[in-house]
Amino acid sequence: MISSDTIVACATPYGIGGIAVVRISGEIAIKIAQALSKKKSFKDKKASFVSLYSEKGDSFDVGVITSFHAPNSYTGENIVEVSCHGNPTIVNKLINICISLGARMADPGEFTRRAFINGKLDLLQVEAVAALIHSNSEKSAILNRRILSGELSEKLKEIKENLINALSFVEFELDVSEECLVEDPIKLILDSSKTAWVSVKKLSNTYKEGRLINRGASVVITGGTNVGKSTLLNALLEENKAIVSETPGTTRDAVDAHLIYDSISITLTDTAGIREARDSIEKEGVIRAINKVREADLVLNVLDSKELPRTVITDFKGSVITVLNKIDLLSETDNKSLNTYFKNPVCVSALTGDGIPNLKKEIKKALHTSDVFSDEVYLITQRQHAIAKTSLQSISDAIDKLKSASPPLELVSIDLRDALSAIDQMLGKTTSDDILNNIFGRFCVGK
Amino acid sequence: MISSDTIVACATPYGIGGIAVVRISGEIAIKIAQALSKKKSFKDKKASFVSLYSEKGDSFDVGVITSFHAPNSYTGENIVEVSCHGNPTIVNKLINICISLGARMADPGEFTRRAFINGKLDLLQVEAVAALIHSNSEKSAILNRRILSGELSEKLKEIKENLINALSFVEFELDVSEECLVEDPIKLILDSSKTAWVSVKKLSNTYKEGRLINRGASVVITGGTNVGKSTLLNALLEENKAIVSETPGTTRDAVDAHLIYDSISITLTDTAGIREARDSIEKEGVIRAINKVREADLVLNVLDSKELPRTVITDFKGSVITVLNKIDLLSETDNKSLNTYFKNPVCVSALTGDGIPNLKKEIKKALHTSDVFSDEVYLITQRQHAIAKTSLQSISDAIDKLKSASPPLELVSIDLRDALSAIDQMLGKTTSDDILNNIFGRFCVGK
Repeated sequence: MISSDTIVACATPYGIGGIAVVRISGEIAIKIAQALSKKKSFKDKKASFVSLYSEKGDSFDVGVITSFHAPNSYTGENIVEVSCHGNPTIVNKLINICISLGARMADPGEFTRRAFINGKLDLLQVEAVAALIHSNSEKSAILNRRILSGELSEKLKEIKENLINALSFVEFELDVSEECLVEDPIKLILDSSKTAWVSVKKLSNTYKEGRLINRGASVVITGGTNVGKSTLLNALLEENKAIVSETPGTTRDAVDAHLIYDSISITLTDTAGIREARDSIEKEGVIRAINKVREADLVLNVLDSKELPRTVITDFKGSVITVLNKIDLLSETDNKSLNTYFKNPVCVSALTGDGIPNLKKEIKKALHTSDVFSDEVYLITQRQHAIAKTSLQSISDAIDKLKSASPPLELVSIDLRDALSAIDQMLGKTTSDDILNNIFGRFCVGK
Repeated sequence: MISSDTIVACATPYGIGGIAVVRISGEIAIKIAQALSKKKSFKDKKASFVSLYSEKGDSFDVGVITSFHAPNSYTGENIVEVSCHGNPTIVNKLINICISLGARMADPGEFTRRAFINGKLDLLQVEAVAALIHSNSEKSAILNRRILSGELSEKLKEIKENLINALSFVEFELDVSEECLVEDPIKLILDSSKTAWVSVKKLSNTYKEGRLINRGASVVITGGTNVGKSTLLNALLEENKAIVSETPGTTRDAVDAHLIYDSISITLTDTAGIREARDSIEKEGVIRAINKVREADLVLNVLDSKELPRTVITDFKGSVITVLNKIDLLSETDNKSLNTYFKNPVCVSALTGDGIPNLKKEIKKALHTSDVFSDEVYLITQRQHAIAKTSLQSISDAIDKLKSASPPLELVSIDLRDALSAIDQMLGKTTSDDILNNIFGRFCVGK
């Protein structure tokens, strides 16, 4: 534990409620609790009913104080949690008294930052805490909980072992190669490097699903004016969240709705029809629609089956499902000719609900959602993914060099050290302050 | 403690934050905590770090569980507080698991209602809890904390003793008056009744200040169009919260601003000018202004000192301060003639700030605010005040009868019993379910 000043913040969301919890961490946390409550001592992890006193000695609330003594606390320092009535005036009063007693207001994420500095959490676990607080599905909570418990850190430590293993053979060869104590040192280095490569590759591939579980999927409904996009959104929601009307161009702006498919959170966006805009507001809507489409994981391109073919969507990263709407208005012969225009269109009538269950099935298939809770841990942040790719490239470079007739071991050593340092960076062992500030800045105050 | 089902609710405000606290109260609370955490036993008031498990056995969060064993808990029942990450998805998951384990969702105020039913709090204390959660100044928190600690209840118990004393003499006289054991029984009854009367009267008089401390004061700025009401509001706020312009009728609707004077919360309302409205929106504004004036504790009636006299305010319950604005535009002779129109007007220039400190002083005087934290407890609810008045009337009736030549003691007995039952009602001993529902219905869920 490093010596530090004492910080204070409200740990519960702002507002009026039954109770609020104010958290104090640092050397004088217990002293502050004593002054606040006029109670002489606090046993570790024991909740005490207390009166809370102002500087002048007036009791302004009753509460419960629980202390968590260093080093067995979240931050590794002395922590005091004061549970008072859930009222912003009382919370502010409490925080001001703590400040007058020597604490200072905590920065966002500062409690967790102290946990990180004091070695209670590595950076993967820190990111899991942030992700856990923002989890929007049970699956996401379970994944982040696993990373918080150290499962992902364990995987990285295994990878580190393989890299250190390879590296130690390299160093041995560079130092004492003349004596030829090891039979085939290059094969040993190659084997360990390949094992590390496979593990990092596998981990890197998990990011897509990790991101899907944590952030959810973005599904955009697009198509020309009046093809029935809003009606389709409503059919998918089975409730009326967007305005549906017969006038072309009713949906001025993007409308977001939320669904859970297979424990994955899905944001369904109904865009303004991509078309020639008649005014600046419509123009803005069209620009937003195009941006939404570009960033989407899946696009539902809706076409009016009576007026085929019309809209063509290009330039985006996700998958597309072509949805032919208004099949209730088609004749038998119309119906047959549809397949000549499109590969595997999904035919629906958003109005009657025909084909909607099938469309749901196709959406789930396209997003690779699954009802199974796998035992895998996934990478969950862009940072982790970027570093994994860097590490993978360094290991690849080392392997390429090792395959040459006379491997330049000095250069292989540099590659493997780069790969190793990337893994350390992922764990937060060599992370720069800028990156740390960025990570902790996204936390709420009080965590 | 009466046997009851087990209730669950989130006790902290809804939203994303560091932590949230879910509260469980009732017979199977501890059993639920065991199932949630797979931990076998919980010591009374001891905080334990635990994993939180779903029905399927997946750990979806880590948290801290603290149990408060019956009868030494807020409700008097077994209480479990689960502190988890502050995320609505996790909170909902946690509550759903508790429900699947046999708890049910708590109604608003149900935890406090159980505290009341189990004799942990009387009704005055219950009302103080609700008031404490909504306190908007330190003074208000301190007052409600005093009532919560039982100071007001003690006063009522003293009053009850005097009434019971008087009543026992009455009953004694009715039963055994023939034997004449007491020298002057009527005097004794009268003395006790008068003591009770004085105490109830004093308490009843505290309501105005209790209300002021808890609810704060409503100060309305009114006056004709373009007299400078918004500028005055801004001068009082010393910051620009309302739109100030030269066009008459700019402030369409009431604008509220908040100040603290002597630890009392003051809502300052700038009304639309009360005038002939030109359209329906303005008309609505004028109607609202008139209503605000009627309900105000204090009205600042602003007049343009160049165009005197113009507006006359009648029909409201509070005090009025006549504010003569724009004195910077007046000549010496104008200035002298002002006092012929008004009794003690406060002359200001909202624009230059002249006279504003004096106006502040007058506002404080009119509201009887004081910087002193008195040791008094006050009545804080309309209910308490209404019952106090009923009780006072009954005691008055008894006293009147006792003063007659031959006091009808049977009727005095009825009056004193009525007074006594009113006091019991204030403490919640004989309160009907409808009134209880009304009181607890204003609580938040989780308290």
